[in-house]
Amino acid sequence: MNLTISQIAEELGVPFTGDGGLSITGIAGLRDAQEGDLSFLANARYALDITETKASAVLVGKEHDQPCKPVLIKVEDPDAAFAQIALYFAPLPITPDVGVHPKAIVSEDFELGNRVSIGPYCVLESGVKVGDGTVLSAGSYIGHNTHIGKNCFFYPHVSIRENVEIGHRVIIHNGTVIGSDGFGYTVDKKGVRTKIPQLGSVKVEDDVEMGANVTIDRARFGKTSIGCGTKIDNLVQIAHNVVIGEHVVLCAQVGISGSVTIGDYAILGGQVGCAGHLEIGEGAMIGAQSGVTKSVAPKTFVSGYPAMEHAKATRMHAHQMRIPILKSKVKSLEKRLQELEDKAN
Amino acid sequence: MNLTISQIAEELGVPFTGDGGLSITGIAGLRDAQEGDLSFLANARYALDITETKASAVLVGKEHDQPCKPVLIKVEDPDAAFAQIALYFAPLPITPDVGVHPKAIVSEDFELGNRVSIGPYCVLESGVKVGDGTVLSAGSYIGHNTHIGKNCFFYPHVSIRENVEIGHRVIIHNGTVIGSDGFGYTVDKKGVRTKIPQLGSVKVEDDVEMGANVTIDRARFGKTSIGCGTKIDNLVQIAHNVVIGEHVVLCAQVGISGSVTIGDYAILGGQVGCAGHLEIGEGAMIGAQSGVTKSVAPKTFVSGYPAMEHAKATRMHAHQMRIPILKSKVKSLEKRLQELEDKAN
Amino acid sequence: MNLTISQIAEELGVPFTGDGGLSITGIAGLRDAQEGDLSFLANARYALDITETKASAVLVGKEHDQPCKPVLIKVEDPDAAFAQIALYFAPLPITPDVGVHPKAIVSEDFELGNRVSIGPYCVLESGVKVGDGTVLSAGSYIGHNTHIGKNCFFYPHVSIRENVEIGHRVIIHNGTVIGSDGFGYTVDKKGVRTKIPQLGSVKVEDDVEMGANVTIDRARFGKTSIGCGTKIDNLVQIAHNVVIGEHVVLCAQVGISGSVTIGDYAILGGQVGCAGHLEIGEGAMIGAQSGVTKSVAPKTFVSGYPAMEHAKATRMHAHQMRIPILKSKVKSLEKRLQELEDKAN
Repeated sequence: MNLTISQIAEELGVPFTGDGGLSITGIAGLRDAQEGDLSFLANARYALDITETKASAVLVGKEHDQPCKPVLIKVEDPDAAFAQIALYFAPLPITPDVGVHPKAIVSEDFELGNRVSIGPYCVLESGVKVGDGTVLSAGSYIGHNTHIGKNCFFYPHVSIRENVEIGHRVIIHNGTVIGSDGFGYTVDKKGVRTKIPQLGSVKVEDDVEMGANVTIDRARFGKTSIGCGTKIDNLVQIAHNVVIGEHVVLCAQVGISGSVTIGDYAILGGQVGCAGHLEIGEGAMIGAQSGVTKSVAPKTFVSGYPAMEHAKATRMHAHQMRIPILKSKVKSLEKRLQELEDKAN
Repeated sequence: MNLTISQIAEELGVPFTGDGGLSITGIAGLRDAQEGDLSFLANARYALDITETKASAVLVGKEHDQPCKPVLIKVEDPDAAFAQIALYFAPLPITPDVGVHPKAIVSEDFELGNRVSIGPYCVLESGVKVGDGTVLSAGSYIGHNTHIGKNCFFYPHVSIRENVEIGHRVIIHNGTVIGSDGFGYTVDKKGVRTKIPQLGSVKVEDDVEMGANVTIDRARFGKTSIGCGTKIDNLVQIAHNVVIGEHVVLCAQVGISGSVTIGDYAILGGQVGCAGHLEIGEGAMIGAQSGVTKSVAPKTFVSGYPAMEHAKATRMHAHQMRIPILKSKVKSLEKRLQELEDKAN
Repeated sequence: MNLTISQIAEELGVPFTGDGGLSITGIAGLRDAQEGDLSFLANARYALDITETKASAVLVGKEHDQPCKPVLIKVEDPDAAFAQIALYFAPLPITPDVGVHPKAIVSEDFELGNRVSIGPYCVLESGVKVGDGTVLSAGSYIGHNTHIGKNCFFYPHVSIRENVEIGHRVIIHNGTVIGSDGFGYTVDKKGVRTKIPQLGSVKVEDDVEMGANVTIDRARFGKTSIGCGTKIDNLVQIAHNVVIGEHVVLCAQVGISGSVTIGDYAILGGQVGCAGHLEIGEGAMIGAQSGVTKSVAPKTFVSGYPAMEHAKATRMHAHQMRIPILKSKVKSLEKRLQELEDKAN
């Protein structure tokens, strides 16, 4: 691909200063950029990099006024503008072959939409339905009576158990497992455990995306459910009977225990753990690595272990860091008091 | 399925009050229940839900006396009673086809029990033995000379390396890996690492269940071992040479470092991490997210980071939360002391 | 296998005292060893075990002088010596068949080195290159235009997306995913997220080893990269645009957020979490379970949450544990001060 600075500025609908005929042949971050690359500065953290970049042109914010070697193109939102131009330099999209690969196994009774792509070594058990335009990549397994909506994209090695419902435009990355049994046992007095049948299922609504090697357990009865538009990062664990609202964000390695409810628009940072049967309110934010032991009110920001209001957690941390000062104050008080006592006697 | 209230009460051997002819057509939690559903109340946390549920009948404890709309059936253990009735409403169990699927690859020398089911796209290397009644689902891989006992059930995409021993009635969920190399290297003075051959194996005893995407490393020599009846949740990591006793519970995302020993009946909460070479005593309990840095005595309950006796951890946390009070006490002491000093001079 | 004590001592080039003709038929740890086994004592933690072991011979350090039943062979480094002898007792190495298995799917345009082994049910998309001597085990997926170097070994069920570059002698364990999309979205005012195309790739340099069920995301643009000799344990998560140096160690379940840079020779303990856009300096050490919220200077050892210099974290922890003492000191001061005040009035 090859665009001139003028073409890029025109595409973005913004002016520029410098050599409009300069040819841009690639895109890169400020540090990796070579001559001919377009880069961008969206985060003040990287401001210094602009003085050292080899990029030929850089997208910057309107307020940017640091002079530097590359041609600067000022835009409202450098991140979004870069994403827009990056599409021109993207690798050719891979279009999976339409149809059922001869090396896939599908039952006779399965219902297939139009323009479906079923990759090699996929196994689709009896009663599976796949909606129009959905792609199941190589080596995926879809259990009995599982229904998948339209225009979904499953990467290779996805594993979905029986009776699961998946909405439309759902993206699932490699190695993710949906519908494994919940971790439920009865315990006798000695501590020996007996498996409780996990008779429920999982429901995943429209526009959900799940990362790689995620695990989502089926419900003991009823449904573990993931609301519309929710985004789940790699290696997240969601236990049985969890109910996740719409447009929730679960960062990597989060673990949600059984029967937790998470409200719409909540955001959970990486490696957060959440004890069973809690309610995380709508729009709540949970700082990375927090251990949530009590329900969280809507729109609250909590952090730490046990998780508490973030402002309080920060204050408490500051207090802890000042214990040595407190200690030396007490020491000095002891000394002064001793002197007074000596005087008084 | 369709059961009347009388039939349900009879099945449970308990009396009831209300319309015995009422027809129950499904089961659900209190919140999700619709007319015609049976639900249950086992956890006081959900007591309020019973006043708002649409369920037609609810299983409650003997002591329950809150009047409400649904028919109440009083039982000793609502959870167990519900599980018993739920079986009537369970989806039909899926019975895998007996035999080796024509699209599975098995070596000529492998030993196959009776009523074994080997799914499509499974690969069983040379020397594999599979006991009577065991099911290996689609796309599983079983390495050279690995032996699997009777009546095991492996879900799709399980991956087991060579020379592993699996007992009877072991359940393994999708994507779990057993027998990957331990994380062992020699280090030279510069910090460059050289792989130490991992010559040992893994032994999994009877009645173990493992969740999805679990990883269990083989021993450097000897065996990583998992005792009889132990239950392992999703995304747990067990390093080389770990020895886990019988009837142990490892909740989701636990990580056990190399050569740790865990006694029988120990319970480790979600996301617990355990440093190498420690001993976790029989019946010990480790609170969720704890960081275990020292061995834990039998029957002890520890929590926090670094993990300490739970009662002590709770006390320490309370002390920390009261630092601001301590601080203001010191401030007031300073003031009062200053006044005394002024007076004394 | 069968070696005499004399043969073992000769192999190691060291003297021994005792019955040189004694026959060693196996190897084991001190606790598991049976008669006929060779064991070793490398860690003082296990010193007591040598008095109770059933091993016939034990490799010990030169300074060892505890008398005991097994024949002792004194060596410079018992661990290394044991590793050397263990090779004689190792299970026969498994040599994968050279060639493309008839049940593998490879595109017509793929480039295959010499002595390559492609296992059954592998899928290699168009444009894939595989170097001399590389082994791709059963059920692996290699995406379009991904290039793999020489003498790599991929265990079963590895999943690699398109346009990824893998160096020479790279080992990847079962179920690991490389090149899944980064977790990147734009957010509108309501909190609804739209996927940002992840147009970049992943580059893995020579001599890297990755454990089982690891996930490594592709870059938004440019490359997520893993430097030469770096070792990554099971269930580690590496987000988009992370740049990892050479000979780095990431223990199990570590999570690295987007755009983090990690210097050469850094070591991250198990379950460490690292916030986005930070720099971890060369040779830094991060204690297990730490939550890293700020960049870490080279050669620094940090721990805790939020991670701080380890010596400081340890000191702070000690201070916290002594709050009760501080509290009782303040109480006593209050009492003494009250007495003085009473006297003064």
